[in-house]
Amino acid sequence: MMDLIHWFDLLGVMVFAISGTLIAHSKHMDGFGVVVLATVTGIGGGTLRDIILDVPVFWLHDTSYFVAIFGAILICILFLNSHRGLPKQMLQVADAFGLAFFAVMGVQKALNIGMPDTTAIIMGVLTACFGGLIRDVLAREIPLLLKGELYAITCIFGGIVYTQMLNWSFSVETAMLLAMAVTLALRLLAMRYNLILHIFKYAD
Amino acid sequence: MMDLIHWFDLLGVMVFAISGTLIAHSKHMDGFGVVVLATVTGIGGGTLRDIILDVPVFWLHDTSYFVAIFGAILICILFLNSHRGLPKQMLQVADAFGLAFFAVMGVQKALNIGMPDTTAIIMGVLTACFGGLIRDVLAREIPLLLKGELYAITCIFGGIVYTQMLNWSFSVETAMLLAMAVTLALRLLAMRYNLILHIFKYAD
Amino acid sequence: MMDLIHWFDLLGVMVFAISGTLIAHSKHMDGFGVVVLATVTGIGGGTLRDIILDVPVFWLHDTSYFVAIFGAILICILFLNSHRGLPKQMLQVADAFGLAFFAVMGVQKALNIGMPDTTAIIMGVLTACFGGLIRDVLAREIPLLLKGELYAITCIFGGIVYTQMLNWSFSVETAMLLAMAVTLALRLLAMRYNLILHIFKYAD
Repeated sequence: MMDLIHWFDLLGVMVFAISGTLIAHSKHMDGFGVVVLATVTGIGGGTLRDIILDVPVFWLHDTSYFVAIFGAILICILFLNSHRGLPKQMLQVADAFGLAFFAVMGVQKALNIGMPDTTAIIMGVLTACFGGLIRDVLAREIPLLLKGELYAITCIFGGIVYTQMLNWSFSVETAMLLAMAVTLALRLLAMRYNLILHIFKYAD
Repeated sequence: MMDLIHWFDLLGVMVFAISGTLIAHSKHMDGFGVVVLATVTGIGGGTLRDIILDVPVFWLHDTSYFVAIFGAILICILFLNSHRGLPKQMLQVADAFGLAFFAVMGVQKALNIGMPDTTAIIMGVLTACFGGLIRDVLAREIPLLLKGELYAITCIFGGIVYTQMLNWSFSVETAMLLAMAVTLALRLLAMRYNLILHIFKYAD
Repeated sequence: MMDLIHWFDLLGVMVFAISGTLIAHSKHMDGFGVVVLATVTGIGGGTLRDIILDVPVFWLHDTSYFVAIFGAILICILFLNSHRGLPKQMLQVADAFGLAFFAVMGVQKALNIGMPDTTAIIMGVLTACFGGLIRDVLAREIPLLLKGELYAITCIFGGIVYTQMLNWSFSVETAMLLAMAVTLALRLLAMRYNLILHIFKYAD
């Protein structure tokens, strides 16, 4: 079981690292700037989660995360240097996968150390959204998170699905896969149909 | 006594959350972007304070802070959707109230765990200023804090008043109220008369 | 020995504080904005390092760091107010010195608490680069770190030199001085000859 979690975690780091590399490429960054943006996006959210929960930061004693990040960068280099045009939506799709993995992993880690469901769901949102937030701030983009489209809210849905399924005594693996699928599907739908949660009336 | 501190803390979170919501509205954000900006502004400073002091982060086991944030957003929605123009200074006034509450609360929390006065005053500044700093970075504004007008320095004054009054054995309640009043008054005066601390000679 | 480390640490804080003050001056900031930028640049990297390593943050019980920061600001005020033009490269040279000091200090602190070499080198990079990263984000510059020129990579070289020399049982002082010299020299060469690590092929 812990193995499955570890692999999902690595996968989440990888897709977020890809999204960081893609944005760095779109800004014509090069060299270590790419590495930094990939790393911050990949492990930023989990690092903040562990700092706030006051547990040992997950990558301090496990270098496999850095292997995953370099793997992600390598994939991007091979792909981007052989293809001219970058499919515009690729960044957002990579981001959506990372979001789904990290939201559920964040909830799981908080539950592991005995946090109540509500706090766990918030930690999931934080794990999933913080890396991308820093990525966008460093790349001087308006953060995806703040644009109003359903983003963090999909993590909340995923977190609720996950915690509820555990309460109904589904297995962790089933709950994890389903919650990730729900988060991913919601996010992709939000991107496709440009779903926005309106709370303010603006003139235009 | 602890009750009073808790209420002041909630009030501080609330006014900072309002200032976050107002800036999100002025940037035509919507939905969860507003929630994120309100939350980060409301609890960002205190979270960093608790992480640096290595005490449990204050909102991990207390959901009342999130109720306060949603209350603040609700107030803003009701107000902003029924009034056309936003009074321009409202953001800065809300910010000034949050500053006054958090500066004193931050000092108090650091003193509670036995920090010396100087460190406590610095933690007050950090609690009061960090949330607004992230708010402005995320909203891509030049941070209020860096514009040169008296801002963080009012927190230092408030912190000195507070620690000195405790040393002169005033009650915590009296010291708290007076220190908050001093901080707020200084900040409002700085806004009104555009007080700037000059340390550099610029040509113009 | 610990004395030497403490003095190097203070020196690192000082040159980074100078680089923060210079950028604040170049943005026509004034008053406390300068103090904040100097402070964040000076102690930001070390603070994040200590938070991630979960050791007490280095400045909590030692006010000498704040004396160093104020000394740095004072030097800048005296210099900038008496000279018209600011030598354009001064900021980058101050930054390079800070980089060299902090990279090695960060590695040393991580080794002190028993981290493996790889993690220690990463903590060195983080200590050296994070303060400057926040400085540039707050000043709304494109971070030096992300521009592609050899920057963080010089810290990695310095870290490798340091850990290897310790493994070959050189004294800490010798290893420290040599590793700092290597990092500094590499960074200055990168600035002088505009060395860039190319990993992407861009059209232009």
